[in-house]
Amino acid sequence: MMSRYKSFVTIEKLTDHIGETVTLNGWVYDKTEKGKLAFIKLRDGSGIVQGVVFRPNVGDEVFGRAQELTQESSVSITGTVRAEQRAPGGVEVDVADIVIHQISRDYPITPKEHGVEFLMEHRHLWLRSTRQHAIMRVRATVIKAIRDFFDGNGFRLMDSPIFTPNACEGTSTLFETDYFDLGKAYLTQSGQLYAEASAMALGRVYTFGPTFRAEKSKTRRHLTEFWMVEPEMAYFDLNDDMDLAEDLVEYIVQTVLETNERELRALERDITKLEKVRRPFHRISYTEAVDWLRANNIKLNRKQADGTEIQIDFPWGEDFGAPQEEAIMTQFEKPCIIHRYPSEVKAFYMKRDPENPKTVLAMDMLAPEGAGEIIGGSQREDNHDALLERLRHENLPEDAFQWYLDLRKFGSVPHSGFGLGVERTVKWITGAEHIREVIPFPRMIYRIVP
Amino acid sequence: MMSRYKSFVTIEKLTDHIGETVTLNGWVYDKTEKGKLAFIKLRDGSGIVQGVVFRPNVGDEVFGRAQELTQESSVSITGTVRAEQRAPGGVEVDVADIVIHQISRDYPITPKEHGVEFLMEHRHLWLRSTRQHAIMRVRATVIKAIRDFFDGNGFRLMDSPIFTPNACEGTSTLFETDYFDLGKAYLTQSGQLYAEASAMALGRVYTFGPTFRAEKSKTRRHLTEFWMVEPEMAYFDLNDDMDLAEDLVEYIVQTVLETNERELRALERDITKLEKVRRPFHRISYTEAVDWLRANNIKLNRKQADGTEIQIDFPWGEDFGAPQEEAIMTQFEKPCIIHRYPSEVKAFYMKRDPENPKTVLAMDMLAPEGAGEIIGGSQREDNHDALLERLRHENLPEDAFQWYLDLRKFGSVPHSGFGLGVERTVKWITGAEHIREVIPFPRMIYRIVP
Repeated sequence: MMSRYKSFVTIEKLTDHIGETVTLNGWVYDKTEKGKLAFIKLRDGSGIVQGVVFRPNVGDEVFGRAQELTQESSVSITGTVRAEQRAPGGVEVDVADIVIHQISRDYPITPKEHGVEFLMEHRHLWLRSTRQHAIMRVRATVIKAIRDFFDGNGFRLMDSPIFTPNACEGTSTLFETDYFDLGKAYLTQSGQLYAEASAMALGRVYTFGPTFRAEKSKTRRHLTEFWMVEPEMAYFDLNDDMDLAEDLVEYIVQTVLETNERELRALERDITKLEKVRRPFHRISYTEAVDWLRANNIKLNRKQADGTEIQIDFPWGEDFGAPQEEAIMTQFEKPCIIHRYPSEVKAFYMKRDPENPKTVLAMDMLAPEGAGEIIGGSQREDNHDALLERLRHENLPEDAFQWYLDLRKFGSVPHSGFGLGVERTVKWITGAEHIREVIPFPRMIYRIVP
Repeated sequence: MMSRYKSFVTIEKLTDHIGETVTLNGWVYDKTEKGKLAFIKLRDGSGIVQGVVFRPNVGDEVFGRAQELTQESSVSITGTVRAEQRAPGGVEVDVADIVIHQISRDYPITPKEHGVEFLMEHRHLWLRSTRQHAIMRVRATVIKAIRDFFDGNGFRLMDSPIFTPNACEGTSTLFETDYFDLGKAYLTQSGQLYAEASAMALGRVYTFGPTFRAEKSKTRRHLTEFWMVEPEMAYFDLNDDMDLAEDLVEYIVQTVLETNERELRALERDITKLEKVRRPFHRISYTEAVDWLRANNIKLNRKQADGTEIQIDFPWGEDFGAPQEEAIMTQFEKPCIIHRYPSEVKAFYMKRDPENPKTVLAMDMLAPEGAGEIIGGSQREDNHDALLERLRHENLPEDAFQWYLDLRKFGSVPHSGFGLGVERTVKWITGAEHIREVIPFPRMIYRIVP
């Protein structure tokens, strides 16, 4: 039994139908007229093709319909597919018939420049533009590449919960909701602790879902709701963790290059930059990075008690901010992993470096071209007592972590993992200026519509 | 550059290493001793294999380590892989060396029967059991099959937002959270409205993410947080929608049969039932279903004003509950689609049936074996004025729906879509008794830990 929908011809498959008569269903992207000719640029979501309407061929009635069409009118066009070297997709359609579904009037987004606020307000329509199409298609490729990478390497998807019972790391950046008779529930900021439990059961796992931060950051890199993939692996040490992170990022970038040439061209992305993203990446320790900052005289701005600011040599023990990260990355054309951070600037669950107990076995991956951090990860503390001591040191509620401590009581093993932010990765690869463009309906501190 | 982690041998790949010496990293699932022999059942998340320790071969020290091992102790075992017909995975390992990472003491989940509440409390450990492994692996296959199906059929993934600005269908089943200066945000119950906007941009799309219902239902079929995939297609009518739904469900079930034979066996699932899930499925209209209920004397319990209950003939216009659905499905071994429901029991966005304005072009797919509804969908109202009238009829805030109405103003087209509940589908396919077993960390009205 052939489904009707399977016989639909889409624009991206038109080169398989040269010489055939097809019906295309879509919207008018643009239209021009010249005497007895009308040129309809039709988009159907899979691509854009030009339909040529020649009055002597179609007659006055059909030609009149072509004349009536406006931007974003919905229309079905029947015609013969013809190879056309000069056309972007390699084909054109000689139109025989036109069925109008709706004439669109006063479409708000015109070819003129619109302000970003106006476009965000009309995000449901803005998504129809070539540029937004291209970004969304790259996003879909990135997500598929991530899943294919893990599914193909013996990892099992284990969805972490969105509702979590405890505000473990303070409530200031958590969204909370009432949860029946159980008090408050908090929206997850990371599935990691659950991924650790899953890794003890299934060896290599990944969680992939939305995560939430109620941060009051109004930067080009922050969303309140963003997608994160978090692999977690039993018996992986920090080195394995870094190897895996490099393999993943190389695979994502190379898959986009193979899949989305057309989109990258539409985005005017310099693909020679992406072609360089090949293993091995750069790796330096936090301490080496601090030495480099000092050697290159990259100072830290520090506020004094009296409100004035002074510039100081970057002190070992301080976390890097965007200015330091950007300075460090000016050396590199490929991503760079910075590893072994001071324990005081990193989370309680990271394993102490046995060779230097002032540092933990953490690693962050920074992308080039000013894209910033795309991965944060670590080897996890697998010693029960050391973890308990860290919990107490940070005044975290022991009770809430009993189940997490259990993982260190019943067959604890060395294990590692990391989180990769989808939107930051898509922003880097597409070269989008602002993170709000790389997710279909962005949520920021000042925006929740449409 | 070969990554260290890539050289790890996992139990599921052991048949590729017969005759070789390998090191396996995992946990003790079970151990027995018999004189000079110890048999260690090792699990590593990918599978289980038996390691045979023969005292004269390994010496007293290594044999002593084998004797020390307890359930869920973490251990690395080095030995030679030997083909063994009688072993479940076709191989055994002749152990040469044992490295103990941690001896597990008093592991709470023993082979004896535990109550469900105890197991749920220890979900982080319960996931290590063979049965939970099997369910989680089927779940991962189901999700991969869904994504492969859509990615392979010209659909683009378009993530819908989790935060939504309006409590459009009443707040009673919505989770809400404070959202900075913008008031309240609500957690999505469905990405459909956003999927419709995306389909107008990209033709065929799907959203796939967690959805939330604050329902006070305490049944075996309800979670407060569950995953749903929602395809939405421009230029699809109800018939195309039903065809696609059948194709998808057939593909999911057949992919699980191909991929998870071992897991289905572990779950003692009757696979002959699943083998029957082949297109075409059954299709009946709501009206035909009502006729069947009446012909078969399946009554409806109705409460009277005085509190007593009477049994009445099923009235046309009433929605089906679980008892009616289960009765209808006793006729069928394959899923059945019920279509064209009364408009009064369905959502405002569904398109009126032009042949009977009392019904809408809705469809629900019920799975056999008492599994209930797994899909709900419809052709959408694409006429601006008809949609506006329905909004007003249901007292919905017009303002909040302006962007949604825009989709009917600027190039409206026939379009359709549906939502498939991941957990209900996995429950059906695995034969799990309760939906809490088919998601790694279930959230129910009375449970939010671990």
